[in-house]
Amino acid sequence: MTKTELIEQIQIKRSFLCVGLDPDLKKIPRFLLKSEDPIFEFNKAIIDATKDYCVAYKPNIAFYECLGPSGWESLKKTFDYIPKNIFTIADAKRGDIGNTSKHYAETFFSFLNANSITVSPYMGEDSVKPFLEYKRKWVILLALTSNKGSLDFQFIKDSNNQELYKSILEKSLKWGTDENIMYVVGATRSENIAEVRKLAPKNFFLVPGLGSQGGSLNDIINYGWNDECGLLINSSRGIIYASNKNDFAEKAGLIAKSIQNRMSKILDEKNF
Amino acid sequence: MTKTELIEQIQIKRSFLCVGLDPDLKKIPRFLLKSEDPIFEFNKAIIDATKDYCVAYKPNIAFYECLGPSGWESLKKTFDYIPKNIFTIADAKRGDIGNTSKHYAETFFSFLNANSITVSPYMGEDSVKPFLEYKRKWVILLALTSNKGSLDFQFIKDSNNQELYKSILEKSLKWGTDENIMYVVGATRSENIAEVRKLAPKNFFLVPGLGSQGGSLNDIINYGWNDECGLLINSSRGIIYASNKNDFAEKAGLIAKSIQNRMSKILDEKNF
Repeated sequence: MTKTELIEQIQIKRSFLCVGLDPDLKKIPRFLLKSEDPIFEFNKAIIDATKDYCVAYKPNIAFYECLGPSGWESLKKTFDYIPKNIFTIADAKRGDIGNTSKHYAETFFSFLNANSITVSPYMGEDSVKPFLEYKRKWVILLALTSNKGSLDFQFIKDSNNQELYKSILEKSLKWGTDENIMYVVGATRSENIAEVRKLAPKNFFLVPGLGSQGGSLNDIINYGWNDECGLLINSSRGIIYASNKNDFAEKAGLIAKSIQNRMSKILDEKNF
Repeated sequence: MTKTELIEQIQIKRSFLCVGLDPDLKKIPRFLLKSEDPIFEFNKAIIDATKDYCVAYKPNIAFYECLGPSGWESLKKTFDYIPKNIFTIADAKRGDIGNTSKHYAETFFSFLNANSITVSPYMGEDSVKPFLEYKRKWVILLALTSNKGSLDFQFIKDSNNQELYKSILEKSLKWGTDENIMYVVGATRSENIAEVRKLAPKNFFLVPGLGSQGGSLNDIINYGWNDECGLLINSSRGIIYASNKNDFAEKAGLIAKSIQNRMSKILDEKNF
């Protein structure tokens, strides 16, 4: 999917919501466990109930991988089931030497046909490049994450007093363009979103941490909005586990709809 | 496997060689493609031919993952086939927020029953901790990698003139012990191994880059040896693709044997 196509979807659906698909056998409604593929049945119901209110889905690969080969079957079925006008994010946080990253790119861009993958920057340019060689595909590079551990290294200041996450931004901006690189920018310290926006005015940000990890929608908009929206805001647990009973999909749909509603008003206010 | 058990194996086998299992359908001998599970058949033959000369195997997950669910079947069969006295490393370079890393730990330590996993440090302590909660299992944290991109961020100096990889070492040493944390320390700039050894005198290092990536065995020993050996030296392509004909396993065995031979002499010289 291209940037233009993504923006078009945001304008049509009046939403920049991304729904995180993190299905956990211990948390999904019990009655689903009787079905042949509970993980896919859960996702299918969530997608059916939320697809009108979001522009992206983000399956977190760890939740599938831990089920062995059958988890990968469920993951593949999930990617295939997501409507083609919805942006897909393989949340995999991969990254290795070039020859290995090439294989990861094959997995996520060819086998799963995801539109994008989250990538860890620690190993530098040659670990990211193989993902950027695919047309119409995206790297979503970790810049500032939303967890407590983000404070361990991401804010280390270099001799010019610049934090590590900013050095990563500056350098990686040269590896691709705003047509194939997005950044993960956590919402827990929303003033930092403004710092990232200064360095990367044109790139889309994937913002995790709405709801369960503490971010506020208004803050994210205040600090991260650009004239193309520039934001995909993710919610996982807050939507998919809104209920663990028979009405789980209905409840997920209601939460997604209420977020879309707030986003729609913001888009109106912004004349977008 | 505990550190004591690993050291015992090094002393018995007179080797600290790790064989990287990176099977690529485009590179393995053609006649294997006719078998039901070419990847496993390839690994099985390589393991049979090299198991007396190495103390560790390191399957690189990317090479299995790119084959979809069947790749995970081959990976599982490979882990199950490796003799129990040989240390296993899932080269996965994972790392995510705590709740997600917990699922990755489940995959690699429970489902695959690997002894260890390589982990990327960028997201900090809570992304690593879930792996450290398993007894007799190891995190092998990326410190200094062997690729060109390692120069992009790993050597950024902080305001105290300390390189990033050293800050990662210093901080992460407090997350666990030398009984559950090892470090990836690339062999391409072997003088840096000495820097890492200064900071982490007791931890084992997984050293990739012998052979195809340019590292020399003597340099690694000179800079990285400690009084418990403290080194697992990996070779992948140099061993497993020594031949792509019918004699691939035999040739792999010969190369592994010749490395073991050199290692044995070093261990003798060190009175280990």
